[in-house]
Amino acid sequence: MAGNSIGQLFRVTTFGESHGVAIGGVIDGCPPGIELSEAHIQAQLDRRRPGQSRYTTARREADQIRILSGVFEGKTTGTPIGVLIENTDQRSRDYSDIQDTYRPGHADYTYDAKYGFRDYRGGGRSSARETAIRVAAGAIAMQVLAGLGVSVRGAMVQMGDINAEQFDWQQVNQNAFFFADSSKLDLLDESIRQLKKAGDSVGARIRVEAHGVPAGWGEPVFDRLDADLAHSLMSINAVKAVAIGDGFAVVEQRGSEHRDEMDASGFLSNHAGGVLGGISSGQPVIAEIALKPTSSITIPGRSIRRDGSECEVVTKGRHDPCVGIRAVPIAEAMLAITLLDHYLRHRGQNSVLTANGQVPTVE
Amino acid sequence: MAGNSIGQLFRVTTFGESHGVAIGGVIDGCPPGIELSEAHIQAQLDRRRPGQSRYTTARREADQIRILSGVFEGKTTGTPIGVLIENTDQRSRDYSDIQDTYRPGHADYTYDAKYGFRDYRGGGRSSARETAIRVAAGAIAMQVLAGLGVSVRGAMVQMGDINAEQFDWQQVNQNAFFFADSSKLDLLDESIRQLKKAGDSVGARIRVEAHGVPAGWGEPVFDRLDADLAHSLMSINAVKAVAIGDGFAVVEQRGSEHRDEMDASGFLSNHAGGVLGGISSGQPVIAEIALKPTSSITIPGRSIRRDGSECEVVTKGRHDPCVGIRAVPIAEAMLAITLLDHYLRHRGQNSVLTANGQVPTVE
Amino acid sequence: MAGNSIGQLFRVTTFGESHGVAIGGVIDGCPPGIELSEAHIQAQLDRRRPGQSRYTTARREADQIRILSGVFEGKTTGTPIGVLIENTDQRSRDYSDIQDTYRPGHADYTYDAKYGFRDYRGGGRSSARETAIRVAAGAIAMQVLAGLGVSVRGAMVQMGDINAEQFDWQQVNQNAFFFADSSKLDLLDESIRQLKKAGDSVGARIRVEAHGVPAGWGEPVFDRLDADLAHSLMSINAVKAVAIGDGFAVVEQRGSEHRDEMDASGFLSNHAGGVLGGISSGQPVIAEIALKPTSSITIPGRSIRRDGSECEVVTKGRHDPCVGIRAVPIAEAMLAITLLDHYLRHRGQNSVLTANGQVPTVE
Amino acid sequence: MAGNSIGQLFRVTTFGESHGVAIGGVIDGCPPGIELSEAHIQAQLDRRRPGQSRYTTARREADQIRILSGVFEGKTTGTPIGVLIENTDQRSRDYSDIQDTYRPGHADYTYDAKYGFRDYRGGGRSSARETAIRVAAGAIAMQVLAGLGVSVRGAMVQMGDINAEQFDWQQVNQNAFFFADSSKLDLLDESIRQLKKAGDSVGARIRVEAHGVPAGWGEPVFDRLDADLAHSLMSINAVKAVAIGDGFAVVEQRGSEHRDEMDASGFLSNHAGGVLGGISSGQPVIAEIALKPTSSITIPGRSIRRDGSECEVVTKGRHDPCVGIRAVPIAEAMLAITLLDHYLRHRGQNSVLTANGQVPTVE
Repeated sequence: MAGNSIGQLFRVTTFGESHGVAIGGVIDGCPPGIELSEAHIQAQLDRRRPGQSRYTTARREADQIRILSGVFEGKTTGTPIGVLIENTDQRSRDYSDIQDTYRPGHADYTYDAKYGFRDYRGGGRSSARETAIRVAAGAIAMQVLAGLGVSVRGAMVQMGDINAEQFDWQQVNQNAFFFADSSKLDLLDESIRQLKKAGDSVGARIRVEAHGVPAGWGEPVFDRLDADLAHSLMSINAVKAVAIGDGFAVVEQRGSEHRDEMDASGFLSNHAGGVLGGISSGQPVIAEIALKPTSSITIPGRSIRRDGSECEVVTKGRHDPCVGIRAVPIAEAMLAITLLDHYLRHRGQNSVLTANGQVPTVE
Repeated sequence: MAGNSIGQLFRVTTFGESHGVAIGGVIDGCPPGIELSEAHIQAQLDRRRPGQSRYTTARREADQIRILSGVFEGKTTGTPIGVLIENTDQRSRDYSDIQDTYRPGHADYTYDAKYGFRDYRGGGRSSARETAIRVAAGAIAMQVLAGLGVSVRGAMVQMGDINAEQFDWQQVNQNAFFFADSSKLDLLDESIRQLKKAGDSVGARIRVEAHGVPAGWGEPVFDRLDADLAHSLMSINAVKAVAIGDGFAVVEQRGSEHRDEMDASGFLSNHAGGVLGGISSGQPVIAEIALKPTSSITIPGRSIRRDGSECEVVTKGRHDPCVGIRAVPIAEAMLAITLLDHYLRHRGQNSVLTANGQVPTVE
Repeated sequence: MAGNSIGQLFRVTTFGESHGVAIGGVIDGCPPGIELSEAHIQAQLDRRRPGQSRYTTARREADQIRILSGVFEGKTTGTPIGVLIENTDQRSRDYSDIQDTYRPGHADYTYDAKYGFRDYRGGGRSSARETAIRVAAGAIAMQVLAGLGVSVRGAMVQMGDINAEQFDWQQVNQNAFFFADSSKLDLLDESIRQLKKAGDSVGARIRVEAHGVPAGWGEPVFDRLDADLAHSLMSINAVKAVAIGDGFAVVEQRGSEHRDEMDASGFLSNHAGGVLGGISSGQPVIAEIALKPTSSITIPGRSIRRDGSECEVVTKGRHDPCVGIRAVPIAEAMLAITLLDHYLRHRGQNSVLTANGQVPTVE
Repeated sequence: MAGNSIGQLFRVTTFGESHGVAIGGVIDGCPPGIELSEAHIQAQLDRRRPGQSRYTTARREADQIRILSGVFEGKTTGTPIGVLIENTDQRSRDYSDIQDTYRPGHADYTYDAKYGFRDYRGGGRSSARETAIRVAAGAIAMQVLAGLGVSVRGAMVQMGDINAEQFDWQQVNQNAFFFADSSKLDLLDESIRQLKKAGDSVGARIRVEAHGVPAGWGEPVFDRLDADLAHSLMSINAVKAVAIGDGFAVVEQRGSEHRDEMDASGFLSNHAGGVLGGISSGQPVIAEIALKPTSSITIPGRSIRRDGSECEVVTKGRHDPCVGIRAVPIAEAMLAITLLDHYLRHRGQNSVLTANGQVPTVE
C-alpha cells in the first residue's frame, strides 16, 4: 500500500503538505455510537499547536479542526470520519533559495531521489505539520478507549542531558515542556534560551503509557502489540529509537531479574512494559522514544544542490529548538491509535465457543 | 489481519508450533526468474540452528527445509513459494506439570488471556522455533537483493556487560557468538559458563546493516522504511528495543552535530542510519536491537496456575543462556524481508515521467 | 479493514454522507509527475452530475471538486491527493417522517441492523452521492493510464427491455442516456416519461471497455484482474451482477466455440473479455453490469418502522427513474481504478531477469 | 499484495502447482476453540475430488489433507492452520510438446507475458488443482459458521442448455452432477457422453446459498458483502459472471416489482439476494456464477508457439467435459470463507455503546 495509512480495523489515512491548501484525513473503522465533537478533538490539537509558548515555533495557526462526516447528532455513525484543517498561515514567500538545495538532515534529498520531484515549500509532505491529523485521530481513539476504561498519557523525560529524576504526572500538563520532573523546569528554560542564541537544537526522550489495557490485545506473531507500537511510534517525524518496558537496559539484565514474577495479587514488576509474547499482559503498557535534534537550525551546514554542486544551507523560518516538546501529544495519539486497532482486531478475531455452541465475545 | 504475515508486496506468512507436526510458510511476491535452491536456504538455516555449539541449546534438529512450490527448473516462477520443516525432534514427554502453570516472563499467561486456550507444549506458537521460517524467507529475500547489489549482515555487539569495542566483520561468522570483537571471545565463553552454572541467562544487543541500498526506498508517512524496520525487528521474539542509526544517543546530540552534512562526494557522516524522512538515503542502513534475557532458566520463579493459585516454576528442557546469539541470522532475515518489500513497493509506486511525458513501464 | 478503501497500490478512500458537510476522499499511490488539474477531474464529474437532463434527478449541485494536496505546480508529487466536494445543496427539511421508517429496497434496515444507528438524511453514507468521489479518483487513474496508452469507455446497452442493437461509440457521449444505439433514443425518452408518470423506475445494463491494456496485468490466484473488477464493479450502488467477456452466455457455449484461438496476428476472437487465468491477454478488457431499478419511487410500498410496526412508504425527493444512466461514468471510473492498481502491482512485483542476471530497476 | 490470499480477518493463503511437490495453504484468523479434524475437512475434499464418477477426470488422487498446525487436542487454538496435500499422482511424462506452445483458452500465454516464464506442467499454478485448498479452508469456515447457525449449500442449476426447472435440495448430493433437478439426470448423462465422444466441453451455472446469516454483515462502501462475494466467486477458475439475487434479470424489472417489501413478519420477497446496501438483510444470501466450458478438449485448436509461429494444439490428458460439476463445492467454500471473514470484521468493527458506557457486541 501507498504508505499514508496506519491500522487495520481502526484505520487512519492522512493527506496534506505543510504549505498546501489544507491537511486532513480519514478515520475509518471507528465504532458507532461514540460521542464526538470538534471541541473534543480541538482540545488535543491545542496541546500540540505551535506558538503556544516561547519554547516552540512562533508560527501561529488556528489549526481549526472540521469534522466533515461520520458524526450525526453528536455521535459517530460507524462510517468514515473525514477531518480537515485549512492551512491559514501559508505565508507567501520566495522559495527560490531552497528549491534546488537539499537541507542537511531533512528529507529533501531522499524525496527527490524517490519521486524525482518535491514540493519544496516548508518540507511539503515530510513536514511535521502532518502530525496534526494524527493528533486528531488519536483524540477519537482516546474517546473510544475511555469507554473501555483505557487511558493514555505521555511526558518528556529527557531533553539533551537534562533527565527527569522523578515522575509527577500531575505536573506534566502544567508546564510547557510536558516534562515529568518540575524541579528541572528552570534548567530546561535556560537550555532552550542558549540553544536559541546558538541557533542550534537538541534531542529529547518521550515516555508514553497506557493504563487499563486488559490482557489479550495483540496478534502473534508479526502483528504483536509491541511490534505495531514500534511501527507507529517510529513513524513519527524525528524518532530514531523505540523501547518497550526496560528497552535497551535488558541487555545487561539477568533472566532472573528481568522476568516479571506473579503471585495471586498479580505481577510483581513490569520490566516487560505490559507486553509478553506480543500480547498485552494487563499491566500498564509503557514505551519510550528518542527524538533527534531538528535539522532546522541557523548554523550553516554543508550540502549540495540538485545539480550536485556544493553549497551552505541555513534554515530560515520559525522552528523549535526541541521538536521533542511537541511530540508528546503526537506519541500519545499513536499509542491510542494502535491500542484501539488492536482492541478491534482482538474482538473480531478471538473468541471461545461456549458449551452451548455460541461464539461469545472475549471480555 | 490475523497477524501471521509481514510485508505488502513481498509477503511472508508463517505457521506452526514448537512441538507440532511441522512449521512452514508461504513467501508470496518473490519476483520470477531468481535462482533458488533448498541448499541456498539451508545454508542460512544452519547458521541459526540450535545445537551447533556449547553456547546454544542442545536440542538437535535437522531443520531440513523443503521447497514445495514456486520454483521450477531452479528458478522462481513468481508464484508463491511454500516451504516446510517437519518437526523431527518432538520428544514425547509429560507436560502435566506445566500445562496449568504460567511460566514467568513467557507468553503462557497472555496467550491464555487472549485465546482462553493454549498449546502448552514448549511454548507452542510463541516459541522462537517459528523464526526458522523467517530465516528461510530472509534467505530468499537476500538472493533477490544480491541481484540488486544489496547485501545484509549482522553481528552481536553486546552480551550482558561485555561490549564490542572494535568491529571486525571478517570475524563475525568465525565465532559461535557472531560477535564483532574477537578479542572478547574468552570473556563471552566464561560468561556463558557462569550463567549455565547459575542457571541464569543474559540479554544481548545485535547490530544489522544493509549495504548497497540506493536512495529512494520507503513510503511516507506511516510506512517509512525505518518504521517498517522497527515493526519487523520488534516482531522477533525477546526484542524490547529498536534503534535506527544513533538511536537513543540522539537525545543528547545537537542538531549541528546530528545532521549528516553532504559535499559533492556524498554524505560526510551517517548519524541517521541511512534513512531520512523515512526514505533510504543511499548510505548504509543501520539498526540495533535489544534482546531480553530468556525467561527459560532453572532458578525457581514465583508464578500462578490457571486457577490463580500460587506456585514456583523452574523451566526444564534445553535452553540457551543467551537467546541473542541465535538472533543474528533472524535479524538479518527481517532486515532483508523489509528491504525487499520496500524495493518492490517503490518500484511499483514511484516512477519518474520521461522527457516525452510517458510513464516508463518495466518490460 | 473498515471497508471504505479500494485498491492496493493505487488506493482510493472515500468519506461523506449525502446530506453531511462534504464528501471527499484520499487517492494514495498515484505516481509522481503526472499532469493534473481540478478542471480535468471536473470534466468527468460533470458527466455524472445530476440535474443535467430531464432524465435524471432535479437536485442541482455544483459538485465543485477541490484538490487539497498531492499536486504541486500542476503535477502530482507522489504524495496522497486529498479531494473535497462541499455539499452546497443540503436543503434543510423535516426528516421526522422517515427517521424511524425503513424504506423498502434501501439500506435503511441493514444499516440500522449493523450500527444500531443511522444517518437518515437522504440515505446518509449509502447514498449514491458517495460515487462522485469515485469518479474523481477515476479521472486521476485515467490520466495516468492515458500515459500508458490505455483508454477506458462505457455505455448503457440496455434500459428495461430496450436493447442496444448496434454499437456506435461516437454517439454515446452525444446523448443523455450514454446509450450505444442512437436509434433507440426516442424509445428511451418515451420510457422515462411513462416511468415518471407512473412514479416507477427501471433497471439498466452497462458495458465498459478498456483498450490498450498490455498482456500481463493481474495477480493470480485470488487477486485476478477479473475478480478485482468484479469486486470494484459490484461495489457500485445498485449493481446486482457482473460479467466478464461473454458472461452468462458461456454456460451454453462449447469449449471449441468459447476458447479464443490465436494465429500469428494475435487472437481471433474475444469471448474471454481480455482476461485469461486472471491475467490480461492484451485484448480489450470487457465487462458488463446490471443495475437494479431504484427503490426511490412514489408508488407506496409496504414496510415497517424501527419498532416493528407496519407502515406504507413513499419516497419523496428528487430521484432518477433509471439510476443506471448516471452509472456509466462511475463504472468507467471503477474500471480505471482497478486497472491502474493492477498496473502498479504488476510493475512492483513482476520482472524478468535480464540476460546478465540482473533484476532491472525502474529508474 | 501478491495475490495468493483472500479475506481480511479470516485470511486464506494458498500455494502449489498442479504437478509440483505439494499444494497447501495457511488459514489465519480462525477463532480458537472450534472443534476441527482432518476427517471433517476430508469429507468436503472428497466431494470435489476428481475421479469419482465417469463425468469427471479420471485423474485419481488421494487428496489426503494433513493439518500441520493450529489445532491442539481437537480444537483450533487461534493460531494459523497450515494444511498440506502431497501430489501423489505426478505422472512423469514428456512435456516437450507443450512447453513452448500456448494452449488456446488457457493461461499459458498470459502467464508467459506476465512472468516471462511458466511452469508448463499441467497448467502449473493456473490449474484448478489449487482449489482443493480453498475447499479445505471452506470446510473450516463452515465449521465456525455452523456454530453461528449459518449453513451453506450449492447446486448446479444449468449445464449447457439443460436447465433445472425445479429445486430439490435433497437430491443435490445424491447425484454426481450436484444437479438441483433430478428429473434431468438422464439428459445430463447423455450430454456428457456426447461431449466425450466429440472431444468437446460445455459450460455450467452454479447457485450457492447461505441460510441463517443475520442482518448486519458487510462493510460499506467498497467491501460490501456482495462486492466481496463477487470477488471471491469470480476468483474461481473458469468463472465469467457473478450474480447476486435476481442478477441480470433486474435490468428489465420495475422498482415497484424489485424492491423487497416488508411487513411485521419480515421480508415478503428476496429479489435482492439477501444483501441491501452491501449489508446482509437477514434473508438467505443467494448468488449464481457462470463457468465457461473448459478449453482442455481434444478438438484441435489454432494457436502459436512462444516464438510466435503458428501451430495446432490438442489438449491431451484427463479432463472433465464440464468443469462446472466440480465447482459446486468450490463455490460453497468461497461463500463460506467470505461470510466468515465478514462476520469477524463486523464483530470487530461495529458496536454500540450501552448506557453504562460499555462497548458490547453487535449480533
